[in-house]
Amino acid sequence: MRIDIITVLPELLKSPFEASILKRAIDKGLVEVHFHNLRDFSLNNYNKIDDYQFGGGAGMVMMIEPIDKCISSLTSQRDYDEIIYMTPDGETLNQGIANQVSLQENIIILCGHYKGVDQRVRDQFITREISVGDYVLSGGELGAAILCDSVIRLIPGVLGDETSALTDSFQDDLLAPPIYTRPADYKGWKVPEILLSGHNKNIEKWREEEAYKNTKNRRPDLLED
Amino acid sequence: MRIDIITVLPELLKSPFEASILKRAIDKGLVEVHFHNLRDFSLNNYNKIDDYQFGGGAGMVMMIEPIDKCISSLTSQRDYDEIIYMTPDGETLNQGIANQVSLQENIIILCGHYKGVDQRVRDQFITREISVGDYVLSGGELGAAILCDSVIRLIPGVLGDETSALTDSFQDDLLAPPIYTRPADYKGWKVPEILLSGHNKNIEKWREEEAYKNTKNRRPDLLED
Repeated sequence: MRIDIITVLPELLKSPFEASILKRAIDKGLVEVHFHNLRDFSLNNYNKIDDYQFGGGAGMVMMIEPIDKCISSLTSQRDYDEIIYMTPDGETLNQGIANQVSLQENIIILCGHYKGVDQRVRDQFITREISVGDYVLSGGELGAAILCDSVIRLIPGVLGDETSALTDSFQDDLLAPPIYTRPADYKGWKVPEILLSGHNKNIEKWREEEAYKNTKNRRPDLLED
Repeated sequence: MRIDIITVLPELLKSPFEASILKRAIDKGLVEVHFHNLRDFSLNNYNKIDDYQFGGGAGMVMMIEPIDKCISSLTSQRDYDEIIYMTPDGETLNQGIANQVSLQENIIILCGHYKGVDQRVRDQFITREISVGDYVLSGGELGAAILCDSVIRLIPGVLGDETSALTDSFQDDLLAPPIYTRPADYKGWKVPEILLSGHNKNIEKWREEEAYKNTKNRRPDLLED
């Protein structure tokens, strides 16, 4: 999988890709991530990529021309399955969308910044708009990092233990059951007896019940679907 | 505001706080962000902070003792309004929660990693559990960065233009209207006439209608509340 990220702040995005699972996936050659600084496609010597809103109002708008140039230079080199724009009014990312995107070969992710991009960018170039949640961030960069993390960890071979991702929350519309590790007794706070029992079948049953209970208490909406 | 972040991967978190609005807020002294490497509180020479699950199963669990030591060392120095755990089964972050948290003085954010933390950590120390969305990430670090970004930008004085945050999506349960900037005509794709008209009142009305239309098309659930 190849991911091209277009941003005005490539330096903001660096560290999440230089640590942990994303780094390992890149090192293993399972995914390629390329950052493109939008300012390299600006129209003048001041690296200008934004301008005031037509009609007035606070906040700057990212101009269409540098984005067009950057996207065109990428699409002239290879085909892309999706050109994704990170925006709070896009479809809300969930595990299903992460699963879908993880099956694609080449994608572009455009990070909005300031008030966002000129609407014509969205109308003309963008094939999918994704939000990471109902809150406003200072830019699309962290959203892009979240999307990449949620997607890349699903690519076969990325996680050390293949079964690990499958037992995570949401993969079967249930939250995870509680988990415990040593010591069995810490300051009088004890691990549930059943987990120490060695009866695998009973443990499995307990976990299913707890996962269901957790989901019912915290996220009944997941059970309705 | 003071934010203490407990993590096994402080290096992953670095760059988002060294750029853009978060950096500016820190430089202005409007917020202090401290990273605490959980491994500094590990119990042995191998910096071990995780162990196998009781009852078997894939994935490691973060042990209670290092987390207890780290949190205790912080709470012995000052009072905290919240000790937040980033977890996919927490309450889903939204703009209302970001507004609430932005009013607090001292908070601790604990980032889960691997399969998560020993349940007793959640039962004994955590006052609030927050999820950034219905998807699984390789750790709580990006979630913590998202939470910090959404919160810090709301602190008065952080954004250059005070009105800018108030016209963002979600602050009034409406998505933002489309925005445009120069050129007015790009490859034949034109900016709506009204925005070039100079009639502020009509522009305001158009924007309200478009915001409502956007919300109705994309996120009718926001209008139901």
